[in-house]
Amino acid sequence: MSRLLIVFFLLSDFFAQSQTTDKDLIKEIYDQALKNGKSYPMLYDLCTKVGPRLSGSPGAAAAVEWGRHTMDDFGFDSVWLQPMMVPHWVRGQQEVGRVINSKKMGSKDVTVVALGGSIGTGPSGLAAGIIEVKSFDELKQQGQKNIQGKIVFFNRPMDATKINTFAAYGGAVDQRANGASEAAKLGAVAVVVRSMGLNNESYAHTGGVRYAPMVRQIPAVAISTQHADLLSKLLKDDRDLQFYLETHCENLEEAPSFNVVGEIKGGEYKDEIILVGGHLDSWDLGQGAHDDGAGCVQAIEVLRLFKMMGYKPKRTIRAVLYMNEENGLRGGQKYAELAKANRENHIAAIESDRGGFAPRGFTMTATDPVKAKIRSWKNLLEPYDLWDFSQEGGGADIGPLGPLGTTLIGYLPDSQRYFNVHHTQEDTIDKVDKRELELGSASMAALVFLMDKYGLK
Amino acid sequence: MSRLLIVFFLLSDFFAQSQTTDKDLIKEIYDQALKNGKSYPMLYDLCTKVGPRLSGSPGAAAAVEWGRHTMDDFGFDSVWLQPMMVPHWVRGQQEVGRVINSKKMGSKDVTVVALGGSIGTGPSGLAAGIIEVKSFDELKQQGQKNIQGKIVFFNRPMDATKINTFAAYGGAVDQRANGASEAAKLGAVAVVVRSMGLNNESYAHTGGVRYAPMVRQIPAVAISTQHADLLSKLLKDDRDLQFYLETHCENLEEAPSFNVVGEIKGGEYKDEIILVGGHLDSWDLGQGAHDDGAGCVQAIEVLRLFKMMGYKPKRTIRAVLYMNEENGLRGGQKYAELAKANRENHIAAIESDRGGFAPRGFTMTATDPVKAKIRSWKNLLEPYDLWDFSQEGGGADIGPLGPLGTTLIGYLPDSQRYFNVHHTQEDTIDKVDKRELELGSASMAALVFLMDKYGLK
Repeated sequence: MSRLLIVFFLLSDFFAQSQTTDKDLIKEIYDQALKNGKSYPMLYDLCTKVGPRLSGSPGAAAAVEWGRHTMDDFGFDSVWLQPMMVPHWVRGQQEVGRVINSKKMGSKDVTVVALGGSIGTGPSGLAAGIIEVKSFDELKQQGQKNIQGKIVFFNRPMDATKINTFAAYGGAVDQRANGASEAAKLGAVAVVVRSMGLNNESYAHTGGVRYAPMVRQIPAVAISTQHADLLSKLLKDDRDLQFYLETHCENLEEAPSFNVVGEIKGGEYKDEIILVGGHLDSWDLGQGAHDDGAGCVQAIEVLRLFKMMGYKPKRTIRAVLYMNEENGLRGGQKYAELAKANRENHIAAIESDRGGFAPRGFTMTATDPVKAKIRSWKNLLEPYDLWDFSQEGGGADIGPLGPLGTTLIGYLPDSQRYFNVHHTQEDTIDKVDKRELELGSASMAALVFLMDKYGLK
Repeated sequence: MSRLLIVFFLLSDFFAQSQTTDKDLIKEIYDQALKNGKSYPMLYDLCTKVGPRLSGSPGAAAAVEWGRHTMDDFGFDSVWLQPMMVPHWVRGQQEVGRVINSKKMGSKDVTVVALGGSIGTGPSGLAAGIIEVKSFDELKQQGQKNIQGKIVFFNRPMDATKINTFAAYGGAVDQRANGASEAAKLGAVAVVVRSMGLNNESYAHTGGVRYAPMVRQIPAVAISTQHADLLSKLLKDDRDLQFYLETHCENLEEAPSFNVVGEIKGGEYKDEIILVGGHLDSWDLGQGAHDDGAGCVQAIEVLRLFKMMGYKPKRTIRAVLYMNEENGLRGGQKYAELAKANRENHIAAIESDRGGFAPRGFTMTATDPVKAKIRSWKNLLEPYDLWDFSQEGGGADIGPLGPLGTTLIGYLPDSQRYFNVHHTQEDTIDKVDKRELELGSASMAALVFLMDKYGLK
């Protein structure tokens, strides 16, 4: 008898025992995820065979095929694509950032990367004086007379004293997202933004820039935290510092792409859908391992675990690999648009987009009775280090389902190491711990199982 | 005014405010640890300038000096050494493990490392048939007739389904600790033990072997998990497999060494001591970064944070860097022996020896009222991810203080990645995350602060 068949019969037997408790079934989920899990080999494949996969890129197209084939091969009840158009930004050749006339260092190259969506300087580059600010208030105090014609250097660090690193990110990311337009309003010619990282790092963090409507678009780059500190130091001695910037990025025509959806049909209440998802696109640096290959393989693994265990859900369980979270959210919007048009009833959606780290809990955007019901399962989940059910939140991609009445849930892993790699060349498979990743898959599966069995009413 | 003086006055002011709450002070501890902490640079120094430091080695002597100088430089009230004799085992030149006559592979080298304390085979090595068992029961079933003259291969893996990896370790480590003597009783000539690791790894994990009294001592090595799986596979096809082993390790004369102790004298109750500690010795592979350089720098950092913040403890706070945890526990025993002889009153001891990972809680070996008192502080600590106060336990080095009535506490970080590096060449500074390490220091300092302020009665 094949090993697979033996496992199948053992598990059939497992479910036949009427005394199988929720506790037993949740333990079985974790056991399978840790002993026979596919989270890590799936992520290894996605990272090494597909690699980076920014919306519109050949990598993104390959990732769509990877997602479809992977779910097809696991034999889910159906797997399909949801087409949409996505922004198509390309970085082009490597950026140049250079301090030109430092009194101490003369000409000195610094590490910069263009922000996603930024216009380029073109091959002739751009040179200008550079002025450091820490906030938009400070920028406005400088006013047009000091900003006009200059490059603005936004250098407010993430606050290391926030225990939740996402709070630290939230307190600094306005510079990256909106700095370019705020500076352009006062006549700046470009912006250099301190990377969204907590450490002293040699590499820079990309991420999206949002140009405000009706404001002149200017080139925007991130600078490594190491070189942000250096630049700040040089500026103290030398207010007339000139900075040279050269970026080759451009926004091309929108391109066709897809969400990838897989599903296991429910029995008793097949019209009630529970969704688990992550986003398939990634920035073009690194391999998108934590952001968000991890979330994609965890979503697939939830369905695979159920199937492998022979668990027949009452409700329909869907894995959604969203396209274009990073620079457009077209996938999340398209999914909700179709859900609405098809009058689908998503009772809950869980998103994993905080990296493949060890479990801590779940965030929730839900009614009080639903929150109370989910919290009533805490005793079943705490043995797996899922203890924090206190925070509000869901996720970017599932967000558009909120207005349809869906309970939104975010998988909440430990946050300490996420911003070491987020949006950088360092977000690669070797930064992912196999067990931590697997525990995330099992945690999502455990919560899906409870919601499937008991509903949320 | 120097930056240091400014910080000093700001902090003086901080303490002068009578409304400073416990919550504020704990936040200040974390803020300082994360913004101005020395945990990471200390550990970087210890790992890269001192490196491995097995008891009796030049590295251990250098580590003692490092510890003394580090605490002296921070200006603690007193710093001193506690002398003792320690076992002195040396690995000698690199081990050889070789499958000799595999039908499939012919002669094939496999990765082995001698277990600490093991006798060596000497340069002429040892060749014999090899037999795989998974437990001592299975070994006994094989009996002398099958074991006599053979090498015993203990191949029971750590149980990946245990969420707490220390439980998985506890369920497998008998093979490493006692396998040699159990096998020798039945006439085995050597043992090869599957490494205490959860992953498929190319490197082997060392660790101590304990020879039972009156039993013949035989050479003992660990084999990488990758090669354990290979060996097991080869043995299935070929029960007559011959294995060659060559180890050059030896047990030398005991050597003098030291615990390193630093202290800040208490005010109101200076005779009540609160101890924080880790162990200074490490295995000879890697740099002893997580095991247990992390614990050492965290202990020192607790005192440094208090001093830097101008916090004057009511009780005496001691950092103890124990020698010889890995292969003798002489430091822990010596410390308790002196504490008893000097009639010192240690109200509590916190040990950090589970790696420099993100906080989860504290283990306790204490009376019920003391446990209840510590748990009553949970609301103050939970914002820092310290939520698990449920487990029994203290630590190996502080254990000997137990009989003196000391409350024993273990710092409990996340356990998922510890056995990726434990006792291997991979336990190096690059595996330590700066923030995770710093959060451990602050967590210990926060608990020390509460115990100092409120006592444990």
